[in-house]
Amino acid sequence: MAVDSLSVKFAALADPTRRAILARLALGETAVTELAEPFAMSLPAVSKHLKVLEHAGLITRGREAQWRPCRIEPGALKDVDNWLEYYRRFWTGSFDRLEGYLRELKAKPELQTKEKRRGRKKRK
Amino acid sequence: MAVDSLSVKFAALADPTRRAILARLALGETAVTELAEPFAMSLPAVSKHLKVLEHAGLITRGREAQWRPCRIEPGALKDVDNWLEYYRRFWTGSFDRLEGYLRELKAKPELQTKEKRRGRKKRK
Repeated sequence: MAVDSLSVKFAALADPTRRAILARLALGETAVTELAEPFAMSLPAVSKHLKVLEHAGLITRGREAQWRPCRIEPGALKDVDNWLEYYRRFWTGSFDRLEGYLRELKAKPELQTKEKRRGRKKRK
Repeated sequence: MAVDSLSVKFAALADPTRRAILARLALGETAVTELAEPFAMSLPAVSKHLKVLEHAGLITRGREAQWRPCRIEPGALKDVDNWLEYYRRFWTGSFDRLEGYLRELKAKPELQTKEKRRGRKKRK
């Protein structure tokens, strides 16, 4: 069972309706009734999804009696983004840096000479 | 129940052991027995987690009879990264650009004058 905060967030995001709700809330705070409309879903069904998102810290809900606006909490998604940071080097970062270095090596022959010299030293 | 590929990925990531396995695999391909060691977990328990990660496309497993090395599939995490892109503007992009602009405005009084002039024109 998911207990740590990151696991709770990932579990909350593992549903297309909840992700669609988040996408809607990214445009601005919205009343629950308004959120329910595009989903052809009952209000209790939407409320259930909102509770999961709220528990994960991904949204907050206003306390106004008549109108309970939902608000996205981007900080919670920033945590997911931070977690991804470690893996980002697979598609950016070190791989890109290596690619850039090889490009630089091609463009600047004096660097190649230095590398060749280093290579020769190692081989001794 | 999660059926779309992104939901399956998020569900697979909603477990600290599975995320730890991914972190280990990011360092290089690893045998299942080697993966099990740091977790003080039975081999069948680790295998169960690997099956979830494999089903989500987050890892692949070699077919060598004796040694079934697990490999991370970073492309699957790139999908999560792409999904986050829409929300990234909350902590980068437009907000950062605004902050940078305000800093620039503070540092370059000539810009301020220009802005003031523009403001005056608008007021006419």
